[in-house]
Amino acid sequence: MRTSRFFLSTSKEAPAEAELVSHKLMLRAGLIKRLGSGLYTWMPLGLRVLRKVEAIVREEMDRAGAIELLMPAVIPAELWQESGRWDVFGPQMLKIKDRHERDFLFGPTHEEVITDIARKEIRSYRQLPVNFYQIQTKFRDEIRPRFGVMRAREFLMKDAYSFHADAASLDETYCAMYDTYSRIFTRLGLKFRAVAADTGAIGGSGSHEFHVLADSGEDAIAFCPNSDYAANVEMAEALPPTGSRPAPGQAMQEVATPGKHSIAEVSAFLGVPADKVVKTLIVKGEKGLIALLLRGDHALNEVKAGKLTGVFSPLTFASDAEVHAAVGCPPGSIGPVGLKLPIIADRALMNLADFVCGANAAGYHLTGVNFGRDLPEPMFADIRNVVEGDPSPDGKGQLGLCRGIEVGHIFKLGTKYSEALQAKFLDEQGKSQTMIMGCYGIGVSRIVAAAIEQGHDERGIVFPPSIAPFELAIVALGYRKNPAVKEAADALYNQLKAADIDVVLDDRDERPGVMFADMELIGVPHRVVVSERGLKEGQLEYQGRQDATATKLPQAEAAKQIEERVKA
Amino acid sequence: MRTSRFFLSTSKEAPAEAELVSHKLMLRAGLIKRLGSGLYTWMPLGLRVLRKVEAIVREEMDRAGAIELLMPAVIPAELWQESGRWDVFGPQMLKIKDRHERDFLFGPTHEEVITDIARKEIRSYRQLPVNFYQIQTKFRDEIRPRFGVMRAREFLMKDAYSFHADAASLDETYCAMYDTYSRIFTRLGLKFRAVAADTGAIGGSGSHEFHVLADSGEDAIAFCPNSDYAANVEMAEALPPTGSRPAPGQAMQEVATPGKHSIAEVSAFLGVPADKVVKTLIVKGEKGLIALLLRGDHALNEVKAGKLTGVFSPLTFASDAEVHAAVGCPPGSIGPVGLKLPIIADRALMNLADFVCGANAAGYHLTGVNFGRDLPEPMFADIRNVVEGDPSPDGKGQLGLCRGIEVGHIFKLGTKYSEALQAKFLDEQGKSQTMIMGCYGIGVSRIVAAAIEQGHDERGIVFPPSIAPFELAIVALGYRKNPAVKEAADALYNQLKAADIDVVLDDRDERPGVMFADMELIGVPHRVVVSERGLKEGQLEYQGRQDATATKLPQAEAAKQIEERVKA
Repeated sequence: MRTSRFFLSTSKEAPAEAELVSHKLMLRAGLIKRLGSGLYTWMPLGLRVLRKVEAIVREEMDRAGAIELLMPAVIPAELWQESGRWDVFGPQMLKIKDRHERDFLFGPTHEEVITDIARKEIRSYRQLPVNFYQIQTKFRDEIRPRFGVMRAREFLMKDAYSFHADAASLDETYCAMYDTYSRIFTRLGLKFRAVAADTGAIGGSGSHEFHVLADSGEDAIAFCPNSDYAANVEMAEALPPTGSRPAPGQAMQEVATPGKHSIAEVSAFLGVPADKVVKTLIVKGEKGLIALLLRGDHALNEVKAGKLTGVFSPLTFASDAEVHAAVGCPPGSIGPVGLKLPIIADRALMNLADFVCGANAAGYHLTGVNFGRDLPEPMFADIRNVVEGDPSPDGKGQLGLCRGIEVGHIFKLGTKYSEALQAKFLDEQGKSQTMIMGCYGIGVSRIVAAAIEQGHDERGIVFPPSIAPFELAIVALGYRKNPAVKEAADALYNQLKAADIDVVLDDRDERPGVMFADMELIGVPHRVVVSERGLKEGQLEYQGRQDATATKLPQAEAAKQIEERVKA
Repeated sequence: MRTSRFFLSTSKEAPAEAELVSHKLMLRAGLIKRLGSGLYTWMPLGLRVLRKVEAIVREEMDRAGAIELLMPAVIPAELWQESGRWDVFGPQMLKIKDRHERDFLFGPTHEEVITDIARKEIRSYRQLPVNFYQIQTKFRDEIRPRFGVMRAREFLMKDAYSFHADAASLDETYCAMYDTYSRIFTRLGLKFRAVAADTGAIGGSGSHEFHVLADSGEDAIAFCPNSDYAANVEMAEALPPTGSRPAPGQAMQEVATPGKHSIAEVSAFLGVPADKVVKTLIVKGEKGLIALLLRGDHALNEVKAGKLTGVFSPLTFASDAEVHAAVGCPPGSIGPVGLKLPIIADRALMNLADFVCGANAAGYHLTGVNFGRDLPEPMFADIRNVVEGDPSPDGKGQLGLCRGIEVGHIFKLGTKYSEALQAKFLDEQGKSQTMIMGCYGIGVSRIVAAAIEQGHDERGIVFPPSIAPFELAIVALGYRKNPAVKEAADALYNQLKAADIDVVLDDRDERPGVMFADMELIGVPHRVVVSERGLKEGQLEYQGRQDATATKLPQAEAAKQIEERVKA
């Protein structure tokens, strides 16, 4: 490709509305162009990157024996009514009426369509297992689309769906997909972690998310540096404390804490560390209000708490008015002593003695409080977020926390869809059985943004070579004025193209600084400069995108040496 | 690919609703699966064909210097309001409201989006010309979707849009696209014709359609067998007659023709050939009704007539009541003599003397009528469809008629969109000019159906080799029972794969008849049978999809000979 015949469109400034660095750089590099809220055109340069990601995903899915097909983007409502999701998926689903006023949706995901195909096409256990996938444009009507293609409404997704005769077969394909995803993200050149995840709205019995690690990631991940353990913070288990609870050492006492409401205020006022202060939160349970107790320095984990018996999921908090009506004091003064509500305490409180808590009277706290003596032993459960330094649930060390961008998700769906749609097969005994399903998604377009979040510097994008728009740029200084430069650049270009290198020849009539800056901004990993001065010395100048300095290559051996560097 | 790990899904019967042979065969071969009205899943086998078509289209567009990008499928209404198409495109446009009740559409075509990009990205004549294209899922809400993917609602399209500084540059790209399309359809292995076409609703000043020739085609095409001339019958010019009009030989006479209304009836009753009977049609003009005269054996061409000054386009006919009110007789008895309406006569009537026409009185006709004597000379114009045997407008012989399936369309758009959206650039003199545009579409998914309409027999699909789902099938008889067959088939499979042949190994445990029938039904162009009997004789059996008989190949040379045949 020659820049003169391509369509580069770089700029020095990014629109002010772009917050994330990947969004800014994708706009500045001309990878994408905004059409509307959450709607982006993939410009020629961006499409090259997107197609490289897509090709790696496709190759690895094919290698794993998955079979590609292509389902319609527009789906009749009836199928989603049959599964029940038409009414529960919510406003992210873009509903459509056709000219005959019939209901359709722009598919945000395709479980129903593929299950409909399976129930019509698969009769016998001999046709199982099978794993279908597609790479397709999807639409989710995000309430606040943002961050460019990171959270766009229209996006490119790889979605796969597997069908099985039994759970063991699902496990096998699930593991194969786990490995396939690991290979995909490795080939993409990304630092990533597979994390145990909550199954969320899609439902099912097991799930891993694949996160590209980046400080800007929306998801908090707990991981063990010494092992494979990683989990979304939503899911990571906080182990109960070891050892036993000290005996009470203080008498319970009510103290005035005028105007002190937050843990920090109370802790400072009383001179007691936050981990000795207990906070009480009132949530709505299935049979009325419930009090949740946490250590002052810990945060409630709503997902884990929501899964407890008797507690609603998703968890909802009682309003100030509801708290006041039930307890008779404002939320900042509540405490468990004498409280007429069911109490669930976080396990971190199990060994806590002589703690501080609200006195259920505005402006007062209790000190020297002890379970068993001043109030009944509560029910203990894991309802907090893990924090850095917590023991890893696999016993291999202490947890660290990092942030990630979710780019892949694998689910054991079980029979949620196959039961709803009656997708059955005859087993070896001729008995009708419900198919067991898995599903496996990759956000193809989001990967491009995630790769940039992970790889960038002050000069622009640092793409992994496998997905850079070009592998190598030949910057020809004076291509249009100096025949020797033109000849040398064209010869090198043709040699490297023949060596199957994805090379771009910058043959524009621009200042050297503009050409260098453009090739750096768009993230080309390797660069060679052909200049009049260099040629006089018989040399070309090579520089890797992250190299501090350039290396001179003898012109005669340049093609060979460059090829080696690019293919290294 | 091995059939045991693929997902073949053939059947002997096609659903009754499938009318076209391509629709029937695509369902029977398992290329597609219906999801809803005009909505089809491309099953794994069909997707292979679709991708091969797509790849050829992409390669040739790239070769022509067009630059690929990818625009969103969902388009904000504002852009279409700016061009004016939001209100005039009609119900084929699928309108969508998002969660905030804002208007969008599922793009049936992308002129507005690309023009919006051009007006933001292109500043100078130095950036022109440029030709962008995409291969994308589109949606047109057909009132009666039918014929499978031939006229589906959701379909895959290649659409390209070029921008130019002047008309000469547009002409150059238009010609290049004409050539590119010819190369594409040639590489696809299809018999096709480029035909001059009406520009229809998209607007513009020049246009060719590319038709795959097939008896089932919806479009009638007039062509000259001795030249490149071809035109949609809507557009084909009927040349005026040569020679001159004979002098009147008969006196005008009113004759009773009781109960005779149609041309056939009047012609038979009076013993006068149909080409001497003139029919009179009353249409609505801009200033009232207009009478159109045609030879009895000719048909009105509404497109050509609609383009005449004073006549509405699209042409509308007067109702029987309107005719009666204006003329005082039923439509079957109208004639031009004494008619108080403007009259336009088809040019075929220029040299007609002593003709028959309605007498403007129910049950009567006039014979021996002559222009200039019995009524004023009318205005003559080309308002009829050409018929087989008409002289070709290029003077190279007589026209023939055939039927075609439109699979491509190239347009000179001019400034329709660039003016509406104010897409301007600075020319060499620094003056602001409006960009000139062309657009170029190919119905990628429709090509698959068109290829089958053109290529099929009683056993199934006869795909051109370039787009067949597989180039070659190895049918291994007894693969699972006979180790010698397995070994020979695997070895051949690996050899041919290494030779870069797209080979499928049918390793199923099926009867030979089923395997042969499947490979024929799905249109694999080459087949080799590996059987125990053949191996004992040291031979494999080769047969081309359209060969009457099989050819025996010595096993040792089989791979080489097959490779030669496949690559021939």
